[in-house]
Amino acid sequence: MRKYELIEKYLIKFLQDEVYKTGLRGAILGLSGGIDSAVVAVLAKKAFGDNFKAVTLPSSASSDSSLKDAKELTDKFNINYESVYIGDIVDNYFKNQEKSNLRVGNFSARIRMSILYDLSFKYSSLVLGTSNKSELLLGYGTLFGDLASAINPIGDIYKSEIFEFAKYLEVPKSIIKKPPSADLWEGQSDEEELGFTYAKIDEALKAYVDDRLSKEEMLNAGFDEKLCELIIKRIYQNQFKRKLPIIAKLGYRTIGHDFLYPRDIKM
Amino acid sequence: MRKYELIEKYLIKFLQDEVYKTGLRGAILGLSGGIDSAVVAVLAKKAFGDNFKAVTLPSSASSDSSLKDAKELTDKFNINYESVYIGDIVDNYFKNQEKSNLRVGNFSARIRMSILYDLSFKYSSLVLGTSNKSELLLGYGTLFGDLASAINPIGDIYKSEIFEFAKYLEVPKSIIKKPPSADLWEGQSDEEELGFTYAKIDEALKAYVDDRLSKEEMLNAGFDEKLCELIIKRIYQNQFKRKLPIIAKLGYRTIGHDFLYPRDIKM
Repeated sequence: MRKYELIEKYLIKFLQDEVYKTGLRGAILGLSGGIDSAVVAVLAKKAFGDNFKAVTLPSSASSDSSLKDAKELTDKFNINYESVYIGDIVDNYFKNQEKSNLRVGNFSARIRMSILYDLSFKYSSLVLGTSNKSELLLGYGTLFGDLASAINPIGDIYKSEIFEFAKYLEVPKSIIKKPPSADLWEGQSDEEELGFTYAKIDEALKAYVDDRLSKEEMLNAGFDEKLCELIIKRIYQNQFKRKLPIIAKLGYRTIGHDFLYPRDIKM
Repeated sequence: MRKYELIEKYLIKFLQDEVYKTGLRGAILGLSGGIDSAVVAVLAKKAFGDNFKAVTLPSSASSDSSLKDAKELTDKFNINYESVYIGDIVDNYFKNQEKSNLRVGNFSARIRMSILYDLSFKYSSLVLGTSNKSELLLGYGTLFGDLASAINPIGDIYKSEIFEFAKYLEVPKSIIKKPPSADLWEGQSDEEELGFTYAKIDEALKAYVDDRLSKEEMLNAGFDEKLCELIIKRIYQNQFKRKLPIIAKLGYRTIGHDFLYPRDIKM
């Protein structure tokens, strides 16, 4: 577990550095009851103590078990938390719209972001992202919803590594053991939707992204062809979720084209 | 007006190119009754005809005159539009929170984004950004609210040029003549808040950003010192609104660090 000891130290330092240099003193995140937000919550508690706050934002589609899991985590690690019910906002809006799992899921994710950002202002905190590298590469997330944050400590950690890291951090077993889900609707399962386990998917993502193998090289190395096609298609199809809005260039220096200071530049 | 004739042609082509290459067929935007969204609406109508839709999203703080101005525009240019009232969502949420102009304004902007993005899915459309270059540089906008879009045709046009462009496009005079406002709360005026007119501010922004003058060079050229300090401070202070969330780097290739394909890369 030496690897995760180092990662833990690095990420706690990352969180502190990024928050303190803005002049703020703490952080906030949306706690779903899933493993990703649990891992970030444990790191943030260690980084900020009582200046870290977790917020559960259940809708009418949220399962009781998710809330129970979130509660078990905040109890175990003595994490400050509060709860804001978003069911009324979502259900009232969809009285006048055609419901689908996707529309309700994405809308709920954006309402959660809206509330989290409001509370982050109230508590002088930065909003922490909780998307892992597998989700970010596959485009498994809502743009301007759960993908919206100031800083994300786990965006370079694959889902299958998150399980290991969570064990090292002593996240409760009930959270580690349940099947991965975006939790946008009841019974949704990432691995069923994708048709492959995260163990398989992550192996392929690492080969394609980190090791820069081509599809042909992956096939020669024994990767399943459907798996290769799935991940390559999803990586490109969802690139828009990993980029800023495109501005039509007209002047000498244009935001996003050639006006490109780093995020934390100082005068 | 030759200049604006060229800009108009370029921006209509930009809108069509960016939308059609995604496989979608139209665009949608939030129409506030202000000049920026009016200009984008006229361009989008010319680019997409009936496949463009404008949405007004009034809250309990919206003035009747804004809605009347929006209606005058959609009538004049025969633009498809619909209206979604966000007052209930905003007012109910703030029953349990301490209200301030800033918190209500930002929350309203994010609720508008949430609804616009839901409707963009319903209508197979891209969401158009309506922030001008002055606003983007000064950080006059809500992150993940009105700053959230897929493409922004006017993000490289300064506010004082928007007025000229709007005249050329024959936007109704009532819209062109009212004082610039983020319209986040009643009576809010950009120029009063900033302490300078957009004409003065834009001159300084152009000198600093496009012509790359230093503060010293600007003072030598006769710019007001307070004005220089204001724009330089705001540009740096708000850089975070023009960047993606920061991911802690751990692997060989990390999103936002060295995994940087363009937005529209194809396989």
